[in-house]
Amino acid sequence: MSAKYCIGVDVGGTKLQAGLVQVGQAIQTRLAETLPSRGPEKVLEDILDLIGQIAGEQLARGEVEAIGLGVPGQVDADGTIHNAPNLGWETFAVVPRLQQEFGVPTYVINDVNAAALYYWKYGVAQGLSDLVVLFVGTGVGGGIIANNQLVTGAQGSAGELGHIIVETNGRPYITGSRGCLEAYCGGRAQAERFRELAKEHPEQANRVIELAGGIERIDNPHIDQAFREGDPFAKQFYDRTSEYLAAGLVTILNCLNPQMVILGGGVLEHNPYLAERAWGIACKQALPLAVSKVRLEMVKLSSIAGVVGSATFASLKASYEPLKP
Amino acid sequence: MSAKYCIGVDVGGTKLQAGLVQVGQAIQTRLAETLPSRGPEKVLEDILDLIGQIAGEQLARGEVEAIGLGVPGQVDADGTIHNAPNLGWETFAVVPRLQQEFGVPTYVINDVNAAALYYWKYGVAQGLSDLVVLFVGTGVGGGIIANNQLVTGAQGSAGELGHIIVETNGRPYITGSRGCLEAYCGGRAQAERFRELAKEHPEQANRVIELAGGIERIDNPHIDQAFREGDPFAKQFYDRTSEYLAAGLVTILNCLNPQMVILGGGVLEHNPYLAERAWGIACKQALPLAVSKVRLEMVKLSSIAGVVGSATFASLKASYEPLKP
Repeated sequence: MSAKYCIGVDVGGTKLQAGLVQVGQAIQTRLAETLPSRGPEKVLEDILDLIGQIAGEQLARGEVEAIGLGVPGQVDADGTIHNAPNLGWETFAVVPRLQQEFGVPTYVINDVNAAALYYWKYGVAQGLSDLVVLFVGTGVGGGIIANNQLVTGAQGSAGELGHIIVETNGRPYITGSRGCLEAYCGGRAQAERFRELAKEHPEQANRVIELAGGIERIDNPHIDQAFREGDPFAKQFYDRTSEYLAAGLVTILNCLNPQMVILGGGVLEHNPYLAERAWGIACKQALPLAVSKVRLEMVKLSSIAGVVGSATFASLKASYEPLKP
Repeated sequence: MSAKYCIGVDVGGTKLQAGLVQVGQAIQTRLAETLPSRGPEKVLEDILDLIGQIAGEQLARGEVEAIGLGVPGQVDADGTIHNAPNLGWETFAVVPRLQQEFGVPTYVINDVNAAALYYWKYGVAQGLSDLVVLFVGTGVGGGIIANNQLVTGAQGSAGELGHIIVETNGRPYITGSRGCLEAYCGGRAQAERFRELAKEHPEQANRVIELAGGIERIDNPHIDQAFREGDPFAKQFYDRTSEYLAAGLVTILNCLNPQMVILGGGVLEHNPYLAERAWGIACKQALPLAVSKVRLEMVKLSSIAGVVGSATFASLKASYEPLKP
């Protein structure tokens, strides 16, 4: 009896990656741009194409056990996607379309939950019972493993660590909350915060304004460059930003007491100072027992984690929840 | 074959309660004062006495399967208690003493974790897979059930929801953190915050100062009384306090997506306004999917929850981890 394949698709805000996966290994993968501005229906068509390209033969031969989609949003127990602002897929039911097209059980999972599954089953966190993954990119996402299980919560929206509150009555955010971690540390929010500061203190923000060619054009790379040049205002900005991140980490450590915290995402990859300073503060402020044996791992944005994790999730679900006729 | 008994002891900062428990029912219980000022050794002696009183016969007949102690602090995997400031039991190893005395497997659990186990196995949360308990008393404690299991974390210190950060770089706290929930909402911290405010604004705090007979004598009951009389400064204080509590609740809801949140503890029991207002804010600010089906339960400080929960924990542990010779 030959082992079957699974398909994993990492549906990011800027790129799609699909992979044919067998027991935690990506046998082949293919990339495409996401182009969410063309509408959710078009993105779905691109996903169907991509899946056909990497696994057409295996699908035709009935060798594909399940398809998993990792998406940057909350996913309910039926696989309906809620609130994926970077995709424009609000409460968009993807599962029936994919199942109809390929006749294969299809499951959707939050993208960082998928990555957590990957690290825990096949990556740096193998064998650990308690693990937290926190990705800081345009937005901030999370995944929790506790007691050797992925924590999905009652409706599948657990692990939304970007929506931890770090400042009571703080910055209003698009989700309707005040002072969440993403509102301070997400890439988009950081640029917004810096532009506001630059308006208040144009002289101190001078170098960044100069690099950007105007306050309204300031984006993350300009702050990064000024920081690398030693600009004190950019450093002060990142110091403050790392303190918000540290507050989120203290909350995570004290609530969940994981054996490992995995930090990743574009923002931290471009600026490891943020993660390092935040981790140092968090380890001092968290309860001593909660950090007595915790390990930090910094990971690169390996799209394999999302692809393999999504496929792994689908395989796990399919094995005890086969496609209904 | 007759069912065996377990013993549960709820070791609070002001009272001890021991109970003889059989399948989730407290058959008999007994109360004593805790008197932590006499030192941890004396408190331990009182516990030994209390256990002897309620279960001397059953112990003598070998009918006691296990003893469980619920304590207001972090407990590591060996049953050693870390950081229980209300007891003065810092890294105090209780287990060997009890096992030596009674020859029965003994286990220690955080008190709110014990209560969570009780509500989940025998109380309002029976049959739920995902549950969070938050108790606001002198301190603030928590307990998490996720995926039908108590979340203890790697070293047993998970569920410390009082040490969620609600204000980055906020109020320094005795544990070394800045801006934790307990530093704003715990009973002791509330009185402290109010005294500070009264010093800054003695005229506005006039009614509370009058009730207390001086700023330094202000304690929670004085603020409560002024609030009930309609004093605007006391109301403003509780409004702000409920916003900190709401921030903690948003974090809990977004991270864990529970089916139920159980709120209790002396502070909320005396002042339900705090809990009600905080819950209203939290349900508006949390992610819609995370609160789409969540239920709130307010519980009275039933010491049965701590006693029965501790006994239940001990029974569960003993069944797969018998006393080593």
